[in-house]
Amino acid sequence: MALMSGALTQILIPASALIGIGFALLQWLLVSKVKVSADYGKKDGYKDKLIEDEEEGAENADAVIQNAISVGATSFLFTQYKYLGIFMGAFAIIMFLFLGSVKGFSTQSEPCTYNPGNLCKPALANAMFSTIAFLLGALTSVLSGFLGMKIATYANARTTLEARKGVGKAFITAFRSGAVMGFLLAANGLLVLYVSINLFKLYYGDDWEGLYESITGYGLGGSSMALFGRVGGGIYTKAADVGADLVGKVEKNIPEDDPRNPAVIADNVGDNVGDIAGMGSDLFGSYAESSCAALFVASISSFGITHDYSAMSYPLIISAMGIVICLITTLFATDLAEIRHVNEIEPSLKRQLLISTVLMTAGIAVVSFVTLPSEFTLFNFGTEKAVKNWHLFFCVSIGLWAGLVIGYITEYYTSNAYSPVQDVADSCRTGAATNVIFGLALGYKSVIIPIFAIAIAIYISFSLAAMYGIAVAALGMLSTIATGLAIDAYGPISDNAGGIAEMAGMSHKIRERTDALDAAGNTTAAIGKGFAIGSAALVSLALFGAFVSRAGIKTVDVLTPKVFIGLIVGAMLPYWFSAMTMKSVGSAALKMVEEVRRQFNTIPGLMEGRVKPDYANCVKISTDASLREMIPPGALVMLTPLIAGTLFGVETLAGVLAGSLVSGVQVAISASNTGGAWDNAKKYIEASS
Amino acid sequence: MALMSGALTQILIPASALIGIGFALLQWLLVSKVKVSADYGKKDGYKDKLIEDEEEGAENADAVIQNAISVGATSFLFTQYKYLGIFMGAFAIIMFLFLGSVKGFSTQSEPCTYNPGNLCKPALANAMFSTIAFLLGALTSVLSGFLGMKIATYANARTTLEARKGVGKAFITAFRSGAVMGFLLAANGLLVLYVSINLFKLYYGDDWEGLYESITGYGLGGSSMALFGRVGGGIYTKAADVGADLVGKVEKNIPEDDPRNPAVIADNVGDNVGDIAGMGSDLFGSYAESSCAALFVASISSFGITHDYSAMSYPLIISAMGIVICLITTLFATDLAEIRHVNEIEPSLKRQLLISTVLMTAGIAVVSFVTLPSEFTLFNFGTEKAVKNWHLFFCVSIGLWAGLVIGYITEYYTSNAYSPVQDVADSCRTGAATNVIFGLALGYKSVIIPIFAIAIAIYISFSLAAMYGIAVAALGMLSTIATGLAIDAYGPISDNAGGIAEMAGMSHKIRERTDALDAAGNTTAAIGKGFAIGSAALVSLALFGAFVSRAGIKTVDVLTPKVFIGLIVGAMLPYWFSAMTMKSVGSAALKMVEEVRRQFNTIPGLMEGRVKPDYANCVKISTDASLREMIPPGALVMLTPLIAGTLFGVETLAGVLAGSLVSGVQVAISASNTGGAWDNAKKYIEASS
Repeated sequence: MALMSGALTQILIPASALIGIGFALLQWLLVSKVKVSADYGKKDGYKDKLIEDEEEGAENADAVIQNAISVGATSFLFTQYKYLGIFMGAFAIIMFLFLGSVKGFSTQSEPCTYNPGNLCKPALANAMFSTIAFLLGALTSVLSGFLGMKIATYANARTTLEARKGVGKAFITAFRSGAVMGFLLAANGLLVLYVSINLFKLYYGDDWEGLYESITGYGLGGSSMALFGRVGGGIYTKAADVGADLVGKVEKNIPEDDPRNPAVIADNVGDNVGDIAGMGSDLFGSYAESSCAALFVASISSFGITHDYSAMSYPLIISAMGIVICLITTLFATDLAEIRHVNEIEPSLKRQLLISTVLMTAGIAVVSFVTLPSEFTLFNFGTEKAVKNWHLFFCVSIGLWAGLVIGYITEYYTSNAYSPVQDVADSCRTGAATNVIFGLALGYKSVIIPIFAIAIAIYISFSLAAMYGIAVAALGMLSTIATGLAIDAYGPISDNAGGIAEMAGMSHKIRERTDALDAAGNTTAAIGKGFAIGSAALVSLALFGAFVSRAGIKTVDVLTPKVFIGLIVGAMLPYWFSAMTMKSVGSAALKMVEEVRRQFNTIPGLMEGRVKPDYANCVKISTDASLREMIPPGALVMLTPLIAGTLFGVETLAGVLAGSLVSGVQVAISASNTGGAWDNAKKYIEASS
Repeated sequence: MALMSGALTQILIPASALIGIGFALLQWLLVSKVKVSADYGKKDGYKDKLIEDEEEGAENADAVIQNAISVGATSFLFTQYKYLGIFMGAFAIIMFLFLGSVKGFSTQSEPCTYNPGNLCKPALANAMFSTIAFLLGALTSVLSGFLGMKIATYANARTTLEARKGVGKAFITAFRSGAVMGFLLAANGLLVLYVSINLFKLYYGDDWEGLYESITGYGLGGSSMALFGRVGGGIYTKAADVGADLVGKVEKNIPEDDPRNPAVIADNVGDNVGDIAGMGSDLFGSYAESSCAALFVASISSFGITHDYSAMSYPLIISAMGIVICLITTLFATDLAEIRHVNEIEPSLKRQLLISTVLMTAGIAVVSFVTLPSEFTLFNFGTEKAVKNWHLFFCVSIGLWAGLVIGYITEYYTSNAYSPVQDVADSCRTGAATNVIFGLALGYKSVIIPIFAIAIAIYISFSLAAMYGIAVAALGMLSTIATGLAIDAYGPISDNAGGIAEMAGMSHKIRERTDALDAAGNTTAAIGKGFAIGSAALVSLALFGAFVSRAGIKTVDVLTPKVFIGLIVGAMLPYWFSAMTMKSVGSAALKMVEEVRRQFNTIPGLMEGRVKPDYANCVKISTDASLREMIPPGALVMLTPLIAGTLFGVETLAGVLAGSLVSGVQVAISASNTGGAWDNAKKYIEASS
C-alpha cells in the first residue's frame, strides 16, 4: 500500500488547485495596479518622475486601442464558440447515441471487461457520463482559452505603459499576465477533473473501470475544442498578420503596427485569439488527454482493481505538485531577480524552464515514493507488467526532461542570439529565395534532436511501464504547464504591447524595448509550440495504445498490407491538413491585402494619418475566413478514424494513427521552428539596421 | 510448367535489349542529321528556305556554347566519378570483407538456407560474386548517366536550330534525344543484368539461391551511385540555377540564360549533370533494385527451387517486353503525328504515357500467361503463398497504372495549363510571401492522390503475391521506363535549347518556342521525379520485405518500443537529409550570387556585352560545392542502417526503414511538385506579360 492515505490525497489535490487559482488572482491584482486611464500618473506621485515627458499625451490612445483589441477578440471568440457550441452539442448527441447503442441502451449491470468478477454499471450510464465528461472538457477548454484572452488583452496596454519605465517593469507585467493564464488553466483543468471524478463516483461507487472510462470523455472534449480553436485562431491571426505586413511594411513602407494600416487591429486581435486562446485550448487538450489516458490505464491495473485511491490518483497528484512547483518557479522571475537590460530577457525565461524542471524532478520523486506502493502491476496489452515505484519516477521525469530538451533546442533554432537565425537573416542579403531555402532547411534540421528526445522518452517509459509509462511521461512534460504557458502567453502579450506602443505613437526607445520583449516572445511561442507538439506526440501514443487495447488488437504488424497502407496514408494526412490550412491562410491573406490596398487607394488622407482606416472590414475578413475554413481540416481529423475504421478495419486504422503520429510530429516541429526563425530573423535585421 | 521454353526465354531477353540499343542508335543518327557547324544550311539546300534570315549569323555561337556546356558537364562528371570510384572501391572491399567474414571466409559448400536439401556454394564465393555484381551495377549506373549527358549536350543546340523551323521539328529533336537516353538505359540495364546472370551461372550451376543472392549486389551498386549522382548533381544544378537567376533576372533585370550572366554556363551544365545524369542513375537504381528484389524472392520460391527458367525470368521478360512496347509508343510521337502548335506539346507527351501504359497492360498479360505456370507458390515471410498467374498480371499492372496516375496528377499540379499553377502565379500579385504559402500548400496537396495510388498498388500486390507482388509492381511502374525517361530527359534538353537560343542572341520568336518546350519540360521533369519516387517507394518496400525475411524477423510490431522509436526516428531522417542538401544548395547559391555580383561590379563592359564573363569561376563554385557537400547526406543514408542495426538491433532498424519510407515519400512528392509548380508559375507569368 502507498504511504499517503486516501483522505490526505482527497485534500491535497483540490488544495493545490485552489492555491493555483489564488496565485493567478494575486498576479492579476498586481497587474491591475498599472492604471490605464486618462488620469493615470496623477494619483501615483512616485511614478510621475519615471514617465518620460513626451509620452504624456499617449495614454488615452492606449486605452482606446486596448479596448478595440479586447472587443474584437471577445466578439470573435463568442462567434466562434457559438458555432462550436452547436457542433459540440451535435457531436455529444451522436456520441451518446453511438456509445449507448453498442449494447442496445442496456440498463442492466454487466460483468466488468477487465475484472470479470465484479459487476459494472450499464452501458447507458457509461454513455451518459461519457457525454457529460465530454461537454465538461469542452467547456473547460473554452474557459481556459477565454480567460487567457481576457487577461492578455487586459495586460497588453499595461505592458506598454510599464515599458516607459524600463524593460524590467514591462517584462514583469507581461510575465505576470502570462502566469495568470498558466495557473488558471492548470488549476482549472485539475479542479474540474477532480470534482468530476468525485461527483461521478457518487453514482459509480466501486465500478472504477466504468468511472474512468467515462472520464476519458473529458480529454476528448478538451482536444476537440483545441482542434478547432487552434485551426480557427491560427487562420485568423496569420491572415491578418500576413495581410497587414505585406501592404503596410512591404508596399507602403510604414512601420509594423502603424495605426494607419487598416489590418492592424485584426493583427493584434489575431495574436490573442490564435496564440493565446488557441494555444491555451491546445495545451489544455493535451493535459486532459494525458491525465485521462493515465487514469484509465490505472483503473484497469492492479492498484485500480484493488482500490488504492492514492496510487490511482498518481497522475492528478503529479499535476497538483506541478502547480506548487511552478508557483515557486514564478517567484524567481517576478520577485527574486529583476531584468535591467534587454539581453537578460531570454536567459531569464530560459531559467524559468530550467528551475521548474529541476524542482519538479524532486517533486516527482516525492510524489512517486509517497503515493505509490513500492511494487505493483500495470495493464500491458492484455497481460500484467510488474512495475516498481521508482520506475514511474523515471517515466515522469524522462518526459519532463525531454520537454526541457525540446524547449532549449527550440530556443537555439528560433532565437536571434544564435547562429541559425543569424544565418537565415544573413541569407536575406541575396533575396527572398535564399531566405526561403535557409529557413526551410533550419526547420528541417531543428527536428533532429527533439525527435531523439521524444524517442528516448518513449523507449524508457514504454519499457518501464508500458502504456501507463507513456501517459505519465506526457504528463511529466506537461507538469510544468503553468510555467510553460506563462512564458508562452508572455509572447503575444509583448507583441500586442509593441503594437499598442506603435499605434499610440510612443517614442522609438519604447518601441525598442517592446521589440526586444517581442523577439523573446517569438522564441517562447515557438517553445510553447514545441511543448504542445512533444506532449501531443506522447499523448497520441498513449491514446493509440488505449485504442489498440480496447479494440483487442494484439499486434500492429507493419509487414501486413492492411497496416502498411494505413501507415503510408496516415503519414500523408498531416500534409493534407497543412495544405488545407495553408491554402486558407493564403486565400484570406490575399483578400486582406486587397482590402488594405483598397483602403489606402480610396480613402483620402489615410496615408497622411488624418483619417482613420476602416478596421472593422479587416476584422470581418479574418473572422469570416477562419470560421468558414476551420471546418474542412477539423472534419478531416475527426472523420478519418471513422472512415478508415469502418471501411478498412481496425488494423488499417491503427496503421493510419501510427503513420500520422510519426509524420505529423516532424511536419509540426519543422513548420513551427521555421516560422519562429523567420519572425526573429526579421527582428534581427530590423534591430541591426 | 510455363508455356514458353527456357531456350526461347534465353533468346528473347537479349534480343529485346539489343533491339532497344539499336533503336537508340537509330534515334541518335536521326538527331545527328541536324548539323551544328558554320557551314550548316549550305549542304542541305532544301532547308535553307526554312531558316529565317536574321538567324544566319548565330550558328557559330551555337556550336561554341554547346561545346562549353558539353565540356563543362563532361569534366564535372569525370571528377565526380573519380571521387565516387575511390569510394565505391573502398565500399566494395568493405562489403567483400563483411560478407566473407560472416562464415569466416569459408570455402566449404553448405546446405542452402531456404532449400536445406540442396548444397549451396560457399560464403566466400557469394561474397566475391556479390562484390562483382555491386561493381557492375555501379558501372552500369555511371554508363547510363554519362551516355544520357552526352546525348543531351549533343542534342541541345540541335533542338535550338530546329526551333528556327518550327516548334514541331524542335520537339521531335528533343524527344528523339530523350528517347536515346531512355532506350540506352533500359536496354543496357537489362543486358548487363542478363549477361551477369548467365556468366555467374557458369559457376553457380544449380545453386540458384546463391546466384540470385549475389546478383542483388547489382541493385545495391546501382542505387549507391544513384544516391551520390542525384545529390551531387542536384546541388550543382540548383546552386547554379538560383545563383544565376537571383543576380541576373532579379537584380540586373537581364533575361534568363543571357550570355552576360557569368553563371549561365554553370546553369546549363547543371541541367545535364543533375536532371539528366542524376535522374538516369536514379531511375536505373530503382530499376536494378526492383529486378533484383523480384529475382531473389523468385529464387527461393517454388518455381525457383524447381528450376523453371522461364518463370524465374519473369521480371526480366517484363522489362524486355517494356522495351518493345516503348519502341512502338515512341513512333506515335516522332512519326505518326506532328506537333504544329505549342499547345500540342503537353498533350502529346501525356499521350505517350497513356499509350505506353495501355499497350504495356496487354504486354504484361501476354508475358504473364506464357512464362508463368498457371498455379505456383511464392515465398512469404517463411511460409509459402499459393498464387495464380493472373495474380501476377494484376500485380504488375497495378504498379504500371499507379505510375500513370502519379504521372497525370503530377502533370495537373505542375503544368501551367491548370488552375493550381495559375493560382500560384496569381498569388505573386501580393508578393513572395503568398507565393511561398500557395506553393508549399500546392505541394502538400499534390501528395494526396499519389499516396492513395501507391497504397492501393501496395495493398493489391501485397495481398495477391506478398513481397514478390510488391517487387513486380515496382517493375511494372518502371516497365515503361524508356518512354518515361524519354519525356523526362526531353525537359533539360529543351531547357538547354532555350539557354542556347538566348545566349546565341536568337530572335524572340525562337525563344518563345523553346520556352514553350521548356515549360512542358518542367512538367515532364516533375513527372519523371514522380515515377522515381513512386517506384522507389515500392522498391524500398520490397527490399524492406527482403531484409525482414533475411533477418528472420516474424513481425514488426508497432506496439513494441523498439519498433516504435525506429518508426519515429526513421520518419525524421528525410528531414535531416533535406536539411543538409538544402543548406548545401543555399550556401553554394550564396557564393554563386556573390561571385556573379563581383564580376558585374568589377569587370568593365560586361553589362554592355562587350566583354565575356569568367564562366569558369562559376562552374568551379558549383563543382566544389557539389563534390564536397554530397558526402554528408550520402553518409547519413548509408550509415543509418549500420548504426541503427548495430546499436539497437534489427527490430529498431525495421522500424527506421518503415518510418523513413512512409515519411520520405511525402517529403519527396511535395518538394518535387512545389518546385515544378514554382518553375512553371514563373514561365506562366513571363509568357503572359
